[in-house]
Amino acid sequence: MRIGLLGPEGTFSENATKKWNNRADLLYYDDISDVARAVANEEVDCGIIPIENSLEGSVGMALDALLHFISDETQIIGEIVIPIKHCLLTKGDIHGIKVILSHPLALAQCQQFIKDHFGDIDIQMTASTAHAASTASRSKEMAAIASEESAGKYGLKVVLRDVQDQKENYTRFIVLGRTTPEPTGKDKTSIIVYLRKDRPGALYEILGEFASRNINLTKIESRPTKKALGDYLFYIDLEGHIADKKVQEALNMVEKKAGVLKVLGSYSGAV
Amino acid sequence: MRIGLLGPEGTFSENATKKWNNRADLLYYDDISDVARAVANEEVDCGIIPIENSLEGSVGMALDALLHFISDETQIIGEIVIPIKHCLLTKGDIHGIKVILSHPLALAQCQQFIKDHFGDIDIQMTASTAHAASTASRSKEMAAIASEESAGKYGLKVVLRDVQDQKENYTRFIVLGRTTPEPTGKDKTSIIVYLRKDRPGALYEILGEFASRNINLTKIESRPTKKALGDYLFYIDLEGHIADKKVQEALNMVEKKAGVLKVLGSYSGAV
Repeated sequence: MRIGLLGPEGTFSENATKKWNNRADLLYYDDISDVARAVANEEVDCGIIPIENSLEGSVGMALDALLHFISDETQIIGEIVIPIKHCLLTKGDIHGIKVILSHPLALAQCQQFIKDHFGDIDIQMTASTAHAASTASRSKEMAAIASEESAGKYGLKVVLRDVQDQKENYTRFIVLGRTTPEPTGKDKTSIIVYLRKDRPGALYEILGEFASRNINLTKIESRPTKKALGDYLFYIDLEGHIADKKVQEALNMVEKKAGVLKVLGSYSGAV
Repeated sequence: MRIGLLGPEGTFSENATKKWNNRADLLYYDDISDVARAVANEEVDCGIIPIENSLEGSVGMALDALLHFISDETQIIGEIVIPIKHCLLTKGDIHGIKVILSHPLALAQCQQFIKDHFGDIDIQMTASTAHAASTASRSKEMAAIASEESAGKYGLKVVLRDVQDQKENYTRFIVLGRTTPEPTGKDKTSIIVYLRKDRPGALYEILGEFASRNINLTKIESRPTKKALGDYLFYIDLEGHIADKKVQEALNMVEKKAGVLKVLGSYSGAV
């Protein structure tokens, strides 16, 4: 089994991947769309990408990747939720830190911590938390905000633990694959619906198809179509499997009303 | 008139601010929440912050700032939409570029351009596009993705224009202030509604209050409460002014059903 994920070694994606399958061969990619493309191109059996964080919300690049790379073959086949505990890592000591490096989302999750402890210190953004740890290993004046695991990998010490602004910090990852999971009784189905800008009541009608069948929605998120300001795709997660009759009926009605419906997959829910 | 905005000089926020009022004194701040705080603290008369881009969607930090700094005194009093045309700027020439710098959202808007023209070149993220231009002025091997205006301000040449992945690229800014605008007949009202996780049909009911009164929604966006995964605030923009009877009725009903409703302001819509 070969799994694609965001690299380099020591990312939170790696923690999530090991929770899903700790015996697979791991292939590291530079960005989320490269992971999704690798699944579609059959370079890997599965790909694992972050989709949503409890502090910072959806990962825009992951939503875009779902739109572009999900097909009849490539689908969402699972999800994983892991706690995110950021640490402050450095080769030097805490008083010598002049620059803090991390991924923009990690920096956003720790913004109050940084303001309170370091004032207006120099901040550098990196492509991943593991990249930050790797770069911080070059100088005692640098510190990375990254996972505890990455300290060992890049020769850094953990100087502070749990530095995110809210102790409770989770990231949900999704697993992309080329199989269709069987119903398990605790399934979710993810869809994308395009609602034309000139039909403002359409979202209400769509939600009515689920409400009238007692289908619970666990998430609804808008994302620009990238064509015009105010023109959105809606990403909806609902409880139930595409093989359930009432889910099928609702999706048939939604497709009639919305015009554009993309089913991303049905899979066992982790939350 | 003193207006607070994101600095340093040469940001797209500055273009938006000049479109709103080109005779005001401009005060530059480091981040979006500092701009909102400056309005609440009466350091400035107005503050202008980016809220949504047509390619990359909502600006999370701006949504959070609305939740924290909008009060009975501080409200949204206007909006501005400007086209975003990114340029590639450098002191050297295009063949000598070894590093590209920009704000993460600008990099996201130009990701295909960078891949196509520069492959896996070194990317550095900065706090604003103007910061990128300022840093790129230090070396001929650096290029910034930033506004045409910032080239002149930081001594760089425009080597390529319109490098965003879609020609049509707009950002919507909102104006925060301490006055309440009168109705103009083309108004929007922005609200935040908290819907408890354990009431999955609540969003449908809320939307029904608007649909049944023929109130069009121009935007609906979910944002994590930061308390638990799956627990959301909904940011909704609707057509009409809070002084309109049907808007008032709908909001009264929404408040009864949702429990938590925050009105962010009524203002003349730009789109």
